[in-house]
Amino acid sequence: MKISIINGPNLNMTGKREPEIYGTQTLDEYLRLLAAGYPDIEFTTFQSNVEGEIVNEIQRVGQDADGIVINAGAYSHYSIAIADALRAVPAQAVEVHISNILAREPERRHSVLAPACVGIITGFGLDSYRLAIEALDSIHST
Amino acid sequence: MKISIINGPNLNMTGKREPEIYGTQTLDEYLRLLAAGYPDIEFTTFQSNVEGEIVNEIQRVGQDADGIVINAGAYSHYSIAIADALRAVPAQAVEVHISNILAREPERRHSVLAPACVGIITGFGLDSYRLAIEALDSIHST
Amino acid sequence: MKISIINGPNLNMTGKREPEIYGTQTLDEYLRLLAAGYPDIEFTTFQSNVEGEIVNEIQRVGQDADGIVINAGAYSHYSIAIADALRAVPAQAVEVHISNILAREPERRHSVLAPACVGIITGFGLDSYRLAIEALDSIHST
Amino acid sequence: MKISIINGPNLNMTGKREPEIYGTQTLDEYLRLLAAGYPDIEFTTFQSNVEGEIVNEIQRVGQDADGIVINAGAYSHYSIAIADALRAVPAQAVEVHISNILAREPERRHSVLAPACVGIITGFGLDSYRLAIEALDSIHST
Amino acid sequence: MKISIINGPNLNMTGKREPEIYGTQTLDEYLRLLAAGYPDIEFTTFQSNVEGEIVNEIQRVGQDADGIVINAGAYSHYSIAIADALRAVPAQAVEVHISNILAREPERRHSVLAPACVGIITGFGLDSYRLAIEALDSIHST
Amino acid sequence: MKISIINGPNLNMTGKREPEIYGTQTLDEYLRLLAAGYPDIEFTTFQSNVEGEIVNEIQRVGQDADGIVINAGAYSHYSIAIADALRAVPAQAVEVHISNILAREPERRHSVLAPACVGIITGFGLDSYRLAIEALDSIHST
Amino acid sequence: MKISIINGPNLNMTGKREPEIYGTQTLDEYLRLLAAGYPDIEFTTFQSNVEGEIVNEIQRVGQDADGIVINAGAYSHYSIAIADALRAVPAQAVEVHISNILAREPERRHSVLAPACVGIITGFGLDSYRLAIEALDSIHST
Amino acid sequence: MKISIINGPNLNMTGKREPEIYGTQTLDEYLRLLAAGYPDIEFTTFQSNVEGEIVNEIQRVGQDADGIVINAGAYSHYSIAIADALRAVPAQAVEVHISNILAREPERRHSVLAPACVGIITGFGLDSYRLAIEALDSIHST
Amino acid sequence: MKISIINGPNLNMTGKREPEIYGTQTLDEYLRLLAAGYPDIEFTTFQSNVEGEIVNEIQRVGQDADGIVINAGAYSHYSIAIADALRAVPAQAVEVHISNILAREPERRHSVLAPACVGIITGFGLDSYRLAIEALDSIHST
Amino acid sequence: MKISIINGPNLNMTGKREPEIYGTQTLDEYLRLLAAGYPDIEFTTFQSNVEGEIVNEIQRVGQDADGIVINAGAYSHYSIAIADALRAVPAQAVEVHISNILAREPERRHSVLAPACVGIITGFGLDSYRLAIEALDSIHST
Amino acid sequence: MKISIINGPNLNMTGKREPEIYGTQTLDEYLRLLAAGYPDIEFTTFQSNVEGEIVNEIQRVGQDADGIVINAGAYSHYSIAIADALRAVPAQAVEVHISNILAREPERRHSVLAPACVGIITGFGLDSYRLAIEALDSIHST
Amino acid sequence: MKISIINGPNLNMTGKREPEIYGTQTLDEYLRLLAAGYPDIEFTTFQSNVEGEIVNEIQRVGQDADGIVINAGAYSHYSIAIADALRAVPAQAVEVHISNILAREPERRHSVLAPACVGIITGFGLDSYRLAIEALDSIHST
Repeated sequence: MKISIINGPNLNMTGKREPEIYGTQTLDEYLRLLAAGYPDIEFTTFQSNVEGEIVNEIQRVGQDADGIVINAGAYSHYSIAIADALRAVPAQAVEVHISNILAREPERRHSVLAPACVGIITGFGLDSYRLAIEALDSIHST
Repeated sequence: MKISIINGPNLNMTGKREPEIYGTQTLDEYLRLLAAGYPDIEFTTFQSNVEGEIVNEIQRVGQDADGIVINAGAYSHYSIAIADALRAVPAQAVEVHISNILAREPERRHSVLAPACVGIITGFGLDSYRLAIEALDSIHST
Repeated sequence: MKISIINGPNLNMTGKREPEIYGTQTLDEYLRLLAAGYPDIEFTTFQSNVEGEIVNEIQRVGQDADGIVINAGAYSHYSIAIADALRAVPAQAVEVHISNILAREPERRHSVLAPACVGIITGFGLDSYRLAIEALDSIHST
Repeated sequence: MKISIINGPNLNMTGKREPEIYGTQTLDEYLRLLAAGYPDIEFTTFQSNVEGEIVNEIQRVGQDADGIVINAGAYSHYSIAIADALRAVPAQAVEVHISNILAREPERRHSVLAPACVGIITGFGLDSYRLAIEALDSIHST
Repeated sequence: MKISIINGPNLNMTGKREPEIYGTQTLDEYLRLLAAGYPDIEFTTFQSNVEGEIVNEIQRVGQDADGIVINAGAYSHYSIAIADALRAVPAQAVEVHISNILAREPERRHSVLAPACVGIITGFGLDSYRLAIEALDSIHST
Repeated sequence: MKISIINGPNLNMTGKREPEIYGTQTLDEYLRLLAAGYPDIEFTTFQSNVEGEIVNEIQRVGQDADGIVINAGAYSHYSIAIADALRAVPAQAVEVHISNILAREPERRHSVLAPACVGIITGFGLDSYRLAIEALDSIHST
Repeated sequence: MKISIINGPNLNMTGKREPEIYGTQTLDEYLRLLAAGYPDIEFTTFQSNVEGEIVNEIQRVGQDADGIVINAGAYSHYSIAIADALRAVPAQAVEVHISNILAREPERRHSVLAPACVGIITGFGLDSYRLAIEALDSIHST
Repeated sequence: MKISIINGPNLNMTGKREPEIYGTQTLDEYLRLLAAGYPDIEFTTFQSNVEGEIVNEIQRVGQDADGIVINAGAYSHYSIAIADALRAVPAQAVEVHISNILAREPERRHSVLAPACVGIITGFGLDSYRLAIEALDSIHST
Repeated sequence: MKISIINGPNLNMTGKREPEIYGTQTLDEYLRLLAAGYPDIEFTTFQSNVEGEIVNEIQRVGQDADGIVINAGAYSHYSIAIADALRAVPAQAVEVHISNILAREPERRHSVLAPACVGIITGFGLDSYRLAIEALDSIHST
Repeated sequence: MKISIINGPNLNMTGKREPEIYGTQTLDEYLRLLAAGYPDIEFTTFQSNVEGEIVNEIQRVGQDADGIVINAGAYSHYSIAIADALRAVPAQAVEVHISNILAREPERRHSVLAPACVGIITGFGLDSYRLAIEALDSIHST
Repeated sequence: MKISIINGPNLNMTGKREPEIYGTQTLDEYLRLLAAGYPDIEFTTFQSNVEGEIVNEIQRVGQDADGIVINAGAYSHYSIAIADALRAVPAQAVEVHISNILAREPERRHSVLAPACVGIITGFGLDSYRLAIEALDSIHST
Repeated sequence: MKISIINGPNLNMTGKREPEIYGTQTLDEYLRLLAAGYPDIEFTTFQSNVEGEIVNEIQRVGQDADGIVINAGAYSHYSIAIADALRAVPAQAVEVHISNILAREPERRHSVLAPACVGIITGFGLDSYRLAIEALDSIHST
């Protein structure tokens, strides 16, 4: 099974600020360790702050991957382009968010990506990524 | 660890119709088997079509339970009363939905319960319940 | 042919107030007389002020009944739960209202039940119930 | 008793297309047969695609008729002129629709005619016309 | 003079949590003491988390009571059914809230009950109940 | 000076109903008398219930007339076609209404014709027509 | 007959700027000449930039005057206080505007004063005042 | 204890019109009698139709007074300036209204002052003022 | 191949005004020359200011024509009746506009006809008609 | 060069409250010192809580001043009257705010004055005034 | 004559998926063949998934090209940046879409690019590009 | 002190078009001269048309810079991603605009960046940049 984890703008800052509060574990490190826990799954990870490069990556990996875990950050709220890219590839996508976006400011309470995804997991911190992999694994084995 | 699974209106119909398509496994049976897989967790399950009885149950179990898995069905979209009940108890709640509510009709694309929950898992069929337990387990062991 | 007539909140007050104006005929009496006029149809009648009990009743009768005549009163305007229940049973539903809801205050000019019903009959006083039975009878004999 | 049946734009196409599906009975034929079933009622029927001609007809028949059955088609959603005409005559109007307009696209879910009518019957196919006559007959005999 | 005090969802939790902050006086106790201060008024008190049971209670007491003090909690914001019940009985209702609902989140800044009540008293903590009794007493003695 | 008075839907009913209240003077008679008071002005009058015929008339008279007094009735609120016709001719138009449309129901509180007119006179009964002629006369003599 | 002409903010600037375009006639001078043309009517005129002083003046003159001609300038669009004052006095008010407010920017296309006035005359330059006096004169002599 | 009662536009008209209906007691007289009933409280009263003078008065009395009873009339619906003034002084404010503003026209159903006040009392006629004093007295003695 | 060109309100004014600016070529002349350039296509042309006559014409030609080129002018923005007529006939319709309606005032930026048409061509002056014929020709030859 | 600094409601409270936090420098003092730093500029300063007096002042100074620095406080959000006054005088206006209004509550995120000003400077505390003078100085010397 | 064809996100996927349905002709191939049919026009083509690179390309080619054919895909609905770029260059732009965007989901029914373009051609499949070239050719030869 | 000046889409076109009107000074040249006037401040400047590259740059410079002057052009109105980046770095940002965005078209009257900035300076042409530096300098020296 192949899963591509795609992260959007500012997620490269996770774990790099305020280490006394959030620890020194970056998102990269977290994802490396997480992947190590699923030796039977082949992972790719990608991060970009550029909307169009996320579209590029979805097009690149979406033909072969079984699943995509996507945290498009702020683009989740307005990038119809990313949603179109997800619809244009056969891989099944799961949208994740570290914070509970449905409990935040009004402009963050909806996702234009959602209708292009199987489902959404939001609010469980970095553990949202693990749950998304669990979800894709379960879909794949059905 | 104690987890209460609370289901709302019409979820008692799951698995009882069109067995040639959906199988004959009811939500009750699914949850019984699911619970069996987590012997260290103490479960209670509850279903009601009555908004206020869901409030009653949250008040009843919410003082002692560590976590609540709530699928309030249609009430998710308008029951501020259930949201208030979730806010009034110490148990941490995870909202689940069988279908991907953010990909459905506009009136189902928001949840008034969301701001009272740790997070949301929506769109993975009955597997959404398992992922919610995983999420609560992970929060509990942190 | 089997028809279930289901009435929602405050409809139990019909005919019990201001008898000098509205007469002393209650909704119960009216429906009893109405049913007597259709000896070939098997009727059940139900009234509750509790949204969830209306859901319960729809689930209970909706598998066997051919038709449901539903006047959900105020719940017509916001109970997605009742709409979901109507969608979950094979019986065909006709929505009725005593007053012409499309001519009243803005918050009463729409019905969330409508998309789950065959059609709507609104504004003909208690005669709306008779017209709904006529409509179901006609559908049934087609 | 006198009843005028007034039909609006495109209703003259009913029954003229796709006869293998809808049969070859036109609205004209249906209404002729329907009228035959009520020998004590004097009927007039009228159809026009022109909004203003519908206003003309309401003014022409509305002084003498006891009731008007109006299916203004698309004009139902925006013709305040037809609503004004209905308000300006003593005949009581019943609005009918073949499809269930409250279950269709948003722009068809309201009727500007409704506040000028006794009531609405929507969603019962051509049978909506018969139910409207039943309703007017009942009002007339009260 | 007869006054019925009716409380809605989650108000049974008042005074039962965080006693070091809010004290150990429950709403029940507060209302008992409050009633004791008005020996000439006959009180009934009622609390339910179920919308329809609040409708039931209003119907039950609303014929005889002179006044109703209603704090419908979250239902204040969407229960047209409770508003209809208040309109259907002769007792005069005063809506109360412990917090100042017009200063809270947007979805709590309006009340669908308000048009069915004489007036509203909101924001004075439990003292809102006393002020409502004062108001009803004054209306009664006019 | 030439002035064309153009009236829209249902204005032909003015003065024809409830003579004990409104008198038996029709709009036609009123306008005939009114015109007689301005012997130096050449008048044409026109009434139609058909939106497009009002467009036709504006095109027909609008090249030669100095002014147009238009009361488009219900069409005032939605006929962009009539507004376009007024914009397409050199005659200056004054919009009149018998009732004060800005004090009526929300859907009647705006006019799509207004931006195509010099000004509006609304609320003075049939006297609105006289004031419009006064206004056009004043513009003409400037 | 007594008429009070009340002008609101910035109308004191009329005729004081750009004399090569608008002439050197101020609103004061215009109204003085206008009044001279109606020797049988007793006039008062008032101008203030202060919303509350306009309320004061309406209260002061509104008991005795037969009519009020009010051009509240920008306050027309938001001063419920002035609308309340007009409702609180027996004098009949006519709202006037120099420009055609219904043809201007969206925020100027409605008037909160309108429902408190007999009618509106808008768009005829300073001649709007004369037409308003004509209208009041006509009402008075009926 | 010191309480300042501040009244806004048109409230000076209360009791001065239609004495056969409302009596001849003015708001001034009512407040004088009301104050006499609370000999331990030091009162000031103020009324102005000018928004800014109400701001002035709040600034003048708000440093020393314990409480402010404010009925800003129409300004309640749009004067952010008065709300800012209330926020800028230490005195606690209670908003009152004679009629039940939440049951009136849509534009009167909200108050921009509410978030700057402890609470609101609306709908009890002049008795709203007495209840507000009771409320402030209770807050003060806590 | 048969194409019907249908024009709506005020398009008969094209080319008849301001000849020094727009030339003296009328829409009729332009369409006659345009048709001459496509000798293999059988054309009909129609213009009416009456909404319902446009519906009539669509019904008349829409059964036989291969394509319809429709410029419904102002009706494009609100005539659901014309949209219904286009949906009711087998001919494929192309909507055209002389100006770029999506760049004009907000009320002209949408078309209710669009969902009933294959496509839209807007903004190219009279050349929009030629492009529409090219488009239909291309569809026809596929 | 002449600059008029005009301040609106509640700005006279700046620096007068909570001196331990904000210091004891009032807005008056700040502006006096600020002016002293620009000896070549002739300043006037004005503050009023009354909307109409701000209009008066703009009319008074706006003919002669080169620039106006206006902080209309709460009136910035709704006073079309002040905006009209700014448009009616030749002086160029710069709108300033102490706090960053575009980052505050929704009702404060827009300014009706903005379209009548050259530009806006918001969020820099009292330094916003200095920056506005710099801006006007720069415009003046161009 | 020089024309630049610029394509946005996901248009590089056209013709690469589901060849049994759409054929194996890619957009690149289609445009190459199309260009070959206009030997007198000098073409450039460009595709990017990155919003800003589309801005770059417009800036690069827009000084020299006579026309731009732009299909910005999803960016058409929200990229004010691309609209600004089109406005900043002298080349005339025509917006094209393969599907009829005005007949799709609400969020796709408007284009922020439209006001920056001469016109729009939408809904004719790949033929939309040919029609745009025809349109530009016609503009160029005028 | 270190200040980073970051410019968004199409700002690289400033000064390159219509030199007879705007002069031949480009934004680059202007900023170079401006920087020269502040020898004690260390400047970096950056321009990109790509949203994500602006995010990259903010992340790159935002840890070390004391202040950021950002003119994100069109992205100011919809880039939550840039706003998030500004929130994620310690540098204090000032938003600038050459034109007065609050006086332009509705879609440009708000900024999603504003809540992530200290303040905004808009409408002063290129001088807005100088004022922003003055503002940051003042903040820095406090």
